[in-house]
Order: sequence, then structure tokens, then C-alpha cells
Amino acid sequence: MSFDFTLTPRVLEWQAGIAAFIRDTVIPREQDAFERGVTDELRRDLQAAGRAAGWWAPQARAELGGGGFAFDETAVLLEEAGYSLLGPLALNCAAPDEGNIHMLSEIADDRQRDAFLVPLVAGEIRSCFAMTEPAPGAGSDPSALRTHARRTPKGWRVTGTKHLITGADGAAVAIVMASGGGGADGDEGATMFLVPTSTPGFAVTGHHRTIDTTTVGGHCTVEIDVEVGDDFVLGEPGLGFRYAQVRLAPARLTHCMRWLGVARRAHDIATARAVSREMFGSTLAAQGQAQAMIADNEIDLAAARALLWQTSWQLAQGIKGGEESSRAKVFVSEATARVVDRSVQLAGGLGTSEELVLGRLYADIRAFRIYDGATEVHKMSIAQRVARRQAAGA
Amino acid sequence: MSFDFTLTPRVLEWQAGIAAFIRDTVIPREQDAFERGVTDELRRDLQAAGRAAGWWAPQARAELGGGGFAFDETAVLLEEAGYSLLGPLALNCAAPDEGNIHMLSEIADDRQRDAFLVPLVAGEIRSCFAMTEPAPGAGSDPSALRTHARRTPKGWRVTGTKHLITGADGAAVAIVMASGGGGADGDEGATMFLVPTSTPGFAVTGHHRTIDTTTVGGHCTVEIDVEVGDDFVLGEPGLGFRYAQVRLAPARLTHCMRWLGVARRAHDIATARAVSREMFGSTLAAQGQAQAMIADNEIDLAAARALLWQTSWQLAQGIKGGEESSRAKVFVSEATARVVDRSVQLAGGLGTSEELVLGRLYADIRAFRIYDGATEVHKMSIAQRVARRQAAGA
Amino acid sequence: MSFDFTLTPRVLEWQAGIAAFIRDTVIPREQDAFERGVTDELRRDLQAAGRAAGWWAPQARAELGGGGFAFDETAVLLEEAGYSLLGPLALNCAAPDEGNIHMLSEIADDRQRDAFLVPLVAGEIRSCFAMTEPAPGAGSDPSALRTHARRTPKGWRVTGTKHLITGADGAAVAIVMASGGGGADGDEGATMFLVPTSTPGFAVTGHHRTIDTTTVGGHCTVEIDVEVGDDFVLGEPGLGFRYAQVRLAPARLTHCMRWLGVARRAHDIATARAVSREMFGSTLAAQGQAQAMIADNEIDLAAARALLWQTSWQLAQGIKGGEESSRAKVFVSEATARVVDRSVQLAGGLGTSEELVLGRLYADIRAFRIYDGATEVHKMSIAQRVARRQAAGA
Amino acid sequence: MSFDFTLTPRVLEWQAGIAAFIRDTVIPREQDAFERGVTDELRRDLQAAGRAAGWWAPQARAELGGGGFAFDETAVLLEEAGYSLLGPLALNCAAPDEGNIHMLSEIADDRQRDAFLVPLVAGEIRSCFAMTEPAPGAGSDPSALRTHARRTPKGWRVTGTKHLITGADGAAVAIVMASGGGGADGDEGATMFLVPTSTPGFAVTGHHRTIDTTTVGGHCTVEIDVEVGDDFVLGEPGLGFRYAQVRLAPARLTHCMRWLGVARRAHDIATARAVSREMFGSTLAAQGQAQAMIADNEIDLAAARALLWQTSWQLAQGIKGGEESSRAKVFVSEATARVVDRSVQLAGGLGTSEELVLGRLYADIRAFRIYDGATEVHKMSIAQRVARRQAAGA
Repeated sequence: MSFDFTLTPRVLEWQAGIAAFIRDTVIPREQDAFERGVTDELRRDLQAAGRAAGWWAPQARAELGGGGFAFDETAVLLEEAGYSLLGPLALNCAAPDEGNIHMLSEIADDRQRDAFLVPLVAGEIRSCFAMTEPAPGAGSDPSALRTHARRTPKGWRVTGTKHLITGADGAAVAIVMASGGGGADGDEGATMFLVPTSTPGFAVTGHHRTIDTTTVGGHCTVEIDVEVGDDFVLGEPGLGFRYAQVRLAPARLTHCMRWLGVARRAHDIATARAVSREMFGSTLAAQGQAQAMIADNEIDLAAARALLWQTSWQLAQGIKGGEESSRAKVFVSEATARVVDRSVQLAGGLGTSEELVLGRLYADIRAFRIYDGATEVHKMSIAQRVARRQAAGA
Repeated sequence: MSFDFTLTPRVLEWQAGIAAFIRDTVIPREQDAFERGVTDELRRDLQAAGRAAGWWAPQARAELGGGGFAFDETAVLLEEAGYSLLGPLALNCAAPDEGNIHMLSEIADDRQRDAFLVPLVAGEIRSCFAMTEPAPGAGSDPSALRTHARRTPKGWRVTGTKHLITGADGAAVAIVMASGGGGADGDEGATMFLVPTSTPGFAVTGHHRTIDTTTVGGHCTVEIDVEVGDDFVLGEPGLGFRYAQVRLAPARLTHCMRWLGVARRAHDIATARAVSREMFGSTLAAQGQAQAMIADNEIDLAAARALLWQTSWQLAQGIKGGEESSRAKVFVSEATARVVDRSVQLAGGLGTSEELVLGRLYADIRAFRIYDGATEVHKMSIAQRVARRQAAGA
Repeated sequence: MSFDFTLTPRVLEWQAGIAAFIRDTVIPREQDAFERGVTDELRRDLQAAGRAAGWWAPQARAELGGGGFAFDETAVLLEEAGYSLLGPLALNCAAPDEGNIHMLSEIADDRQRDAFLVPLVAGEIRSCFAMTEPAPGAGSDPSALRTHARRTPKGWRVTGTKHLITGADGAAVAIVMASGGGGADGDEGATMFLVPTSTPGFAVTGHHRTIDTTTVGGHCTVEIDVEVGDDFVLGEPGLGFRYAQVRLAPARLTHCMRWLGVARRAHDIATARAVSREMFGSTLAAQGQAQAMIADNEIDLAAARALLWQTSWQLAQGIKGGEESSRAKVFVSEATARVVDRSVQLAGGLGTSEELVLGRLYADIRAFRIYDGATEVHKMSIAQRVARRQAAGA
Repeated sequence: MSFDFTLTPRVLEWQAGIAAFIRDTVIPREQDAFERGVTDELRRDLQAAGRAAGWWAPQARAELGGGGFAFDETAVLLEEAGYSLLGPLALNCAAPDEGNIHMLSEIADDRQRDAFLVPLVAGEIRSCFAMTEPAPGAGSDPSALRTHARRTPKGWRVTGTKHLITGADGAAVAIVMASGGGGADGDEGATMFLVPTSTPGFAVTGHHRTIDTTTVGGHCTVEIDVEVGDDFVLGEPGLGFRYAQVRLAPARLTHCMRWLGVARRAHDIATARAVSREMFGSTLAAQGQAQAMIADNEIDLAAARALLWQTSWQLAQGIKGGEESSRAKVFVSEATARVVDRSVQLAGGLGTSEELVLGRLYADIRAFRIYDGATEVHKMSIAQRVARRQAAGA
């Protein structure tokens, strides 16, 4: 045989453990969180339980206190954590910390590691990733970056406005992407800075009122006018775009993993209802149109998982995976959105309610087709690569 | 020529007047309403402005104080009102009052007219329509009705639980659908009651936390155990299902009219942004994938409007229009949902926010594919009629 | 009431007459035509029957021997003719002659009228419209026209290659679009020529093997190197692109009318089967997934017809209707393709067969989403107009 | 790491070999085959070349002369063979022989193996699988089987009518499914017979005129009234339905493998054209709507392949895979149909032509969504299993 899809005993153990933890500890907290919002207090409670349960940060390196799983194994475990919208938070594998942990693990120096990465993995602090800017700045097109860094006698002055910065409110540190810092060749490039949010000149100035509600720290506007020393540069100056790639492809896929769990949850809620709900003389689950929705969900989940596992394996093998992760991100984000939408429809009148959870899943998943590269941006990028290959090979 | 799609001068006058009123008076109130919720206080303010503007209740009969427009003319005007989520409320053509006004205009006796209908049209009171029940009661399948009415010496005792009753909290009167009251033939039928919410035994016991937020009075659970006299029966006992039909087909279509306005609003917001947003070297509106979304919106809006106008004309002609309104309801609800979804996507990162309005439109429109007959229920019904015709004619 | 969708008695009479003619005279010839191909002999037979039946060329002017119906009335009648793939041919309202008749009625001079238009309407000759060229010539982008006309002492020499020219083989006259002939302003423009196919230098050099098979004269490659006098110029030199617009918008819509009939036919075949076919313990038509397909067909047909009628009325009113006809063309071509596809699926194993007609409808309808402006080209054009309006502040 | 998607060197060698063979030997024969049809003469020519090339029957057991690959490896190789519609025929891995070879390898006794299986693998004879019947017989619902077998003194008399029997004309042997032969429990079951087509009473009485044209032997009606001995029973009497399962799940997936190759071919043709075709001032491939189609194709191909590989691995592991193969069949058949449809659209005017191959791919692939279980039948089956699991509390 060529392939092997066998899960190792350790993956199976963690998968079962996470499933039980989500079911017994996290899901019972959901309704309260939906009503009151996801506060840092709730996060601390959930993370205390998560650490105690022992399935902590499966994706983080073992020497940092994480599970130390390979990236394709992580796909299995983060889907399981995603079964509750609060699950990844409870197990410290939620965005944006999870992606920041990954990037810092690759790039941070020893001082940064001790100051930021270690407490991040431990759940002692939170972080945010400050890249997106209001128009006409960096959004779908990162090259439009307007936040700028210039050298000063003591280091750097970084100035600009960021928006839609998830988790900024309450974060201890922000990874700030700014243009500037580039080399002698005239290309000014971009540089990443690790900015403690207590730095004078760093201010969270507003919260966007988006329809998703389960992210701790919200989606914020951040005004930045800070001076930092050289030791707050992440990696080397001028290489910001390259480092962004280090974060982007895996972060896309970990999003996919978590949202696949969300979609499975929606499907389970809907099918549980469909087998018990009687109408027009039979259960809903026995009626053709409902069967089509149930089966379409099963098929979308299976195809999304298969593509995600394969792509995660490719990244685990060491390929950069820009095109592969773009394909997976588009397919999984669109497929999971379809699954949740069908689940809402199957559930009928209460399908848009928080009580049945589905309403919350529906509202919260919408932005997934937009962030980390909107579907259309990934499609453009995929097609450009195809065209380049065709032009080269033909 | 066979057809005529010309709008009369009076329709054109009201259309322009409503458009200006929505733009100048209603839209400026939206952000506040989104943040604080739609209260009865806000309703009274908006309705005072609406009455003063003079475009009050276009669909209601002139002798009751409404605009007195024919049903196909109403299609033009309610789309215009729907351009803001708050517009129909401001002009007293919002659900559920608008549908209740229509039904009472057709069925209420003189006393009921004076007690309930006249103040309803005037905006002095609100009403609700209490039909839907928790499973296993009446939902998509109305014949499963569990709320029951039985005769008592003084009239009727009506007992049951309703849920998802829009606007119940704060309504002065509820139209309650109950089984019972039927004739000598053993079929107990169903009966409609006009129950003042102050009647002892009528209680709003809960609010569903659905993702839509712009309906005054919420979506409520109602416990009913009331005794009412014969004069609170709407029409004749036993004919409840027949009366429900009086409300259902037109109410489906007025929903379509209003949501068509919502979808046009979403499209306008998105295209306004697309022509001004620069990325990858041109405006977003000049890029192929965005063009496809813009054009798909235009096409969906045009097709939805054409079908809706034709169907509304058919109802204005006096046909019952069950099948026609089912077709229109499915098409318009699905098409407007697509339009709003594409608009969110076009708007990018802020597309899911209330600030850009789109997030609210997206969340609020979702239930439209479910209520007033879910898409799947209408499809079943349409196909059954086709099959009956085929079997009869073939 | 604002609108009127009433069909006049004369439209109703012709509609019923065409329906009977298609059912009794045309459909019985289909299987033979599918097996042997649609020859000019078959065309003459069918047209003799069509003329005798009295419902000849409903769209052509009465003074030329046609039905003289307004454009919105034509929508009703061409749908009826389209109920068989051979119906429009039998009643001389098929492409490309129908579009050519329309354009010549608007532009031809008296000599051209007698020489070409009158015999065309009578069905004595056939014509073709020679615009499309092989890449990199005029296809979706008409401005890429490579066939060229230059003035000679005796008139014009027209040189170029055309392809996918429907009906060229056997046509008596070709309307040839060529660049050149423009005015003093340096814009060479384009000119249309009426070229008898017997002109030396006009040659049908090949047939494309496309999957549709019911067009008389096929889809041909034509090599052109002809000399013609000034009296063979259609209208004025240099105005070819303007004249093309005269043909394009209405021709798009007459395509829509005919294909709407095709889609209705597919749906009728499929539903007739669905009510009689038993499987899994009930008729196919009683099963939910089949019901969804049947209802989706009904809805698509109704929406397509409503949009088409409205757009046809707009053109009958005298508007140019570029944007409106683009919207209708995209919606109707995509909707009818969906209807035929679902019908094939409903019919199961024999759905792709000619015996059940559906296989032929499926193969023949595919190109409708491409010709007369591909879906994508219309969407681009629609979006550009929206963007222009938005930018203009409307 | 948990997974392994590495291809073995032998798989890679065969994959490259098949790709070269298809490109250099099979594709050059296509146009001729499209024009004249796929005859047994052409089959013999192609298979002689295929045997000579050395990549013969990759899926068949090595001891029978095949490649002896595991089922998941076969997925890679049959996709490669499917890159031409004639490729699987040339390499003797086409339906229906490939599925019959698999089933006979599992069930045939020694005599049957020598008489039928060995010459089948060698390409000396062809076979057909005679299960489907005209309504109201066995189609989507196999239990409706009407062809019947009853015991006679000398063996069995099998009587019935089959239709849509692929490859029957020219086949040497038919595997005939008939009701009867069951056990003492009163359930008559079904029995499979290996009927040489030369048996008196076996007659191919007609060819369906379906729109696909590249299957040797066509899709036939077969009248059966034969007497055969006990040694013509395949396996044991009464177990026909069980044996059908042996064939069905893997045969579904080998269809998927081949059609995935077809879809990739369509995509390659379309993208090759898109990078070279200029319109509106750039290449087609640089335009957004075309990019979306190209990327959607890439994504559909990647997701289909990922799901197919995983499912093939599951079957290679020994699971029965009814539900898994149903999911894969629906996804792959629908996804490949989308890919081919988009490719046609991308290719524009010639997209429906045989010259560009795409027209043939489009017509030929349509039935794949119907045969081997229509999409809707698989969805019903998938949903029923989900419901059963839900009800069981899993």
C-alpha cells in the first residue's frame, strides 16, 4: 500500500481526552459565555481546567510545555478542540495566540522566548497579531502596508493604525507588522516588532461590533506610535514579509482544523434534532430533503478533513505549502460554512438561536471566509500559480 | 403590447417620499438601534416621524388611515421601506403587525375592528401572531397544533404553549391559533382568538436569543391558559386553518418585499465600497471576481423583483396564490440571502460588522429562509401540486 | 393596480395554436431528426407545415408576412415554439434567421429588403450572421475584429476568416461584419455586408463538431475574400458596431424565449416520469429529493419567465436595454441549464438518452451559456455599468 | 507524524509510464475515435499498444497478468489512465471489464477463472454486467429486480429484460443478476450467472442513443431467456445481492479514479487556452472570473483526490466501505462534473466541440452522476446510516 492514514496511539489518546474534556467541561460553560461574552476571567477558568485535564496546547513544542505533536497530528486534535467555540481557548490552541506561538517558536531569540513565548504557552499572557489596517492600508493586499518603522538613535519608531486586531484588548504583547527596515537595495521591506502593550504610545482605541462574539479581547482598532529598542525586532529587520509567510500557511490550516470541529458540532446538533423531530408523518431525518442536507454535510466534512489532513501532512513534511494551504483554506472555509448553514436550516425555527448553539456558530463562522485571505484572494493566487506553471511548462 | 409595468404617479410619489424618509430620518437612527436594541420607545419615535412624513402604512386600507395601495403597488413601496431594517417599523408596515392588520381587515367584526384594528393601524398598540409551538407542536407542519380551545359556559378556554412568537413582549393583543371549535362532522378544526395580552393566564415567559436583533418585542415563549368570551373569536369557530391561509400568502410576499429592500441596501453598501477601495493596483470594482459578485447581485435583485411583482399582481387580481407565493417566497428568500452574503464578502474585514450595517443585515436575514414556511416545506408543497396536476392531466 | 400581466386574446390564440402544432406536428418528427440530423429537406417539410398551420414567424412584421407581435408578446409565443428543439425552425423564428430578419427589418434598404428580407421571412432562403472569428479575432471581445474591408474602385474587398458561423452551410446570404469603412476621424469602425454565399471568394470550409446537433447548416468555418459593390453594405459604412447592437439585445432575449420553452419541455418530461416511476416504496415524485428538484425547476422557470417578460416589455417600450438584456440573458441561460440538468437527473439512466429527448436537450443547451455573450462577459459588463453609476453618484 | 502520503517508487514509475503512454499513443487516436466511434477494432489496436507499453491492467492481480497494485495505489494509476477517455480501455482498466475482473477474482471458481477471467484480463474477450432493468425493474432500487431464475432439472432458466447494459454488444460473457435461488427461509434472494453471450436465448436487441459515445459496445437492451447449468452460477445461489456489494463499492471508486483523470484533462486544456488567449487587454488567465474558475477547478481536483485516496486506502485496508465509497462517489462525480463544466465555459465558443475534446468530455461525463447509484440514492443511504447511528446513541 502507498498511503497510511492510521492514527498513532498517542494521537488517539489525546483525541479521546480532548473530546471528553470538551463534552464534560467546556460545553456546560457555553450558554453562560454566549450571554455574558467571553471575558479574560472565563478564559482563566477554562484554561485552568484545560491545564488540569492534561491536553494542553497540543500544537506547541513539548519543551515549551505543549503537546509536541506534528502538524498533521495537530489536525486531528484541533478539530476535536474546535467542537466547542470555547474549546481552543480552554486548551490554548486558539487564534491568535496559537499562530503567534508558532511564529515565535520559529523566530524569537532567547530573550523574546523567555519574555513572551514561554508565558504565552503557559497561558499567563495573551498576544495579538497587528497586521491588518484600515483602507487604504494593508488588508487583502499586504503590500499596501502603511504602518511604518524608521530607525532612531535608540532603535525604532513605529507609527500607524491597525484595525480588526483580534484579541488586542487585554493582550500583553502585540506583534506589529510595519513597513521599513529593508536593505541597501532600496526595497524598504517590512519588519516585525514585539511590542508590549504597556509601551507608551500603544493604545486600543475601539472595538468593532462584528457579529461573532466568542473571541476574547474582541476585534480592535489600535493606534501605534511607539519607540522600541532593537531587541524588540522579531528576527531581522526587513524580513517581515518573509516571516509573515512563516505564520500564514500554518495559521490558515489551524483555523481550518478548529472550524472543522465547529462544523461537525453543528451537524451533530442538527442530526440529533432530525432523528427526534416528527413532522408530516415521519421523523425529519427520514425525509428526502433533510436526508440530502445531512448527507451533504457528511460529504463536505469528509472531503474537508481529507484535504486538510493531506495538506497538513505536506506542511509537516517541510514544504512551504502556500498553494496547498490556499486550496485547503478556501475549500474548508466554504465547506464548513455550508455545513453550518444547512444545520441551521435543518433545525428550523430555533436554528438561529443561541440556545441551540447553532445561531452562534452561524454568526461566528461567517468571517472565516474573509480573514486569513478572503476566498477570492486565495483563488487569484492559486490561478496565478497555475498560469505561471502553464506558461513555463507549455 | 401585452404587459404593463408602468408605475402610477401616486406610486412614484410615495416611492420617492419613502426613499427620502428612510435616507434622512431612519438610517441616521440605525447605529444607535443596533447598539441598544429596538425598544418600544424607539418605535414610538420612529412612528411619530413616519406619520408626520405622510407615507404611513401604505398597505393598509385608506378608510383605516393607511395608504390604500393595491397589493402589487405595495410591492414597490415595501421594498423601499425595507431599505432600512427599521423602515417598515417606522411606517407601520412591519411584521407581524402588517400581516395582522391585513387579516383583521378581512375577518374582524365591528367590535374587534374598533378595539384592535383601528389602534393597530394607528400605531397605538402592537400585536403578535401566536401560531408556532415547540416540538412536537405546530411548526412547519401546522396540523400538529397542540394549543387547544374548548367551549365553556361563558365562551372558551384556550390552553397551550407557543414559542418564537415575534413581538409578543409588549404587544397589546395576540392572535392565538388553537385546535378545536370545529363542526359536527367530527373534524375539530382550529379557531383563532383575539386575546388581549392583559387577559389573566396569558404570559410571556421567555425570550429566544436568536441572532437577529431588530424586531421590537423579540421572539418569545408564551404560556396561555385563558378564558375568553365568544366575541374574542376571530371570524367563526372551526375555520382557523382557512383564516390562516388568508394571512399566509400575502404575508409571505410582504416579507419578500421588505427583504428585497434589505438586500438592495446591502448591495449598495458593498458596491459603494467596491468602487472606492483600491487593492492590487485597481479598484475592487474593476476586478473580475468582484464584478461577478456585483453582477450576480444585480441579477438576483432583478429576478426577485420581477417574480415578486408578477406574483403580487396575481394576488391583487384576487387569486389565492398558494403555489405562486410559495415559489416567490423560496426564490426571494434564497436570492436575497445570496445578495447579502456576497455583499458581506465584497466588504471584506468589516463586512461582518454592525458599523458597516452588513453584519446586522447578514444575521437578521438568516431566519427568512425558515419562517413563513421553510424553503424545504414550500418545495414539498410545490412539487405535490405539480405531481397532482401531472397525474390529473396526463 | 400598477401592473398588467394579462395576455391579449390574440396572444392566447396563437399560444394555444403553437402549442397544438408543436405537440401534433413537430414532436412526432423529433426522433427521426435526432437520428439523421436536421437537414434542409426536413426544414422545408417542417416549414411547409408551419406555414399551413398559420402561426408563421410570430415575431416578424405583419407587412412582411409575419405575426406582427410586439416584443413582449413574442416572449410568450417563442417560448411555446421552443417547446421542441425543432419548433422555432418550423415556425421560422429560429436563430440565426430570426435575428437577421429583425436587423434587416430595421436597417436594410429597399433593394436589400426585396432581395433578402422578403424571401427570408417567407422561408425561401436561409441566412447566417458572420461575426465570430478564431482567436485572436473577435469572440467575446468584438473589438478584436480581424476580418477587414477596404474600399476598391468598384466597392469593397472583404477578407477574413470566420468560425462557429451557425447555419452558414446552405445559407443563401451572410451578414458579414468587418472592420473598416469608418469616418474621417481616424476610427476605422466596422461595416456590415450582405454577402450572397454564391459570391466568388465566399467558402464554407469546415464544420465544427460541437455536441449540439439540431441546428440546420451546422456551425461552420468560413473563408472570405470577396469583392462586393456599395449596395451590399448594410446601412452605412463604419456603423457596424452600432448595428450589431440593434441585433444583439433582442437576439439575446429571443434566445431566452426559445430556451425557456426547451427547459419547460425537459421539466415536463421529467415530472411525467417522476409521477409514474415507483422506487423505494413510493413514486419518485413523492420523494423529498425529487420534490426539491421538481420545485427548483418550477421556481427557476417562473423566475426566468417573470424577468424575461419584464425585460421584453422594456425593449418593446423602446429602451435599448443593454444592461437589462444582459441580466436576463445570464439568468435565463443559467436557470434553463439548471432545469435541464435536474430533469436529466430525475430521469435517471435514460436521462442522457435521445429516446427520452432529455439527452439531446442537455447537450444542445450547453452552448447557450457561452454564445451571445458568455455569462462572464455579461457579468463584467453589468458590473462596469454599476460601478459607473456608483462613481457618478447615482 | 501520523499520516503518510508518499508514493512508492513502483507507483511513481507506473504513473510516469502511463502518463507518457497516454500522451504519446492514446491521445493521438482520439479525434479519429470521436468521429468514427469506439469500435472493437480500435480497442484491439489500443490494447495491443497498451500491452506492449507494459502498464497493463494495473488494478488486476499479478498472477493473472495485471499490475497487482493495492487499491490505493490503483487510485493514482487509474487517474493517469483516465486522462484520455480511451486510456482505461487501452490499459484494460475500463468499465465494465475492470469491475467484472475484480468480482470474478474474488468469487469465480477455477473453471470460471480459466474460461472467463483469464481471457478478460488478457483483453482477449470483453464482458458486461447485466443488472439494470427497465422500469419498474431494478434501477436505483436493486430490490425491484424482475429478471428471474428458477431451477430446472439441468440447472437454471433465467428470464428477463435488461437495459442500459454497457458493452453488451460484442461482449463474450455477461454477468446476469436474477432474483431467485434463495434459501429455505423463504427469501428467494438473487443469483448471479456467468452467461456466454452465445448462449441461445441471449440477445442484444437494441442500443440506447445516449450522449456519451466512447464506450465500446454501447449501452444495450438485452433480452434473456436462457438455460444454463449449475457451473454457470457465480459463487453460490441466493447470494447475488451480497456479491453485488463486492463489486459495487470498489467499482464506484475506480469510476472516480478514471473520471478524476478526465476532469484533470479538461482543466489542463482549458488553462492552456486561458494563458494564451488574449481578450479585453490581457490574457484570459489574468482575468478575475477566469481565475476563479481555474482555482475552483484546482480546489475541486485536490479535494476529490484527497477524499478518493483516503477512501481507497480504507478499502485497501479491508473495510467494506459502503458509506465511505458513497460519500466519495457523490463528491467526486459532482466535483469532476463541475470541473469539466467550468473548463467548457473557459474555452468559450469551441468549448462544446470535439476538436477541443472538451465537448466530448462534457457529454460523456454527465451520466457519471447517475450510474453506480445516482447522487440522490447515495445521499439517502448516507443519511439513513447517520440517522441509525444517532438513534443508536453513537
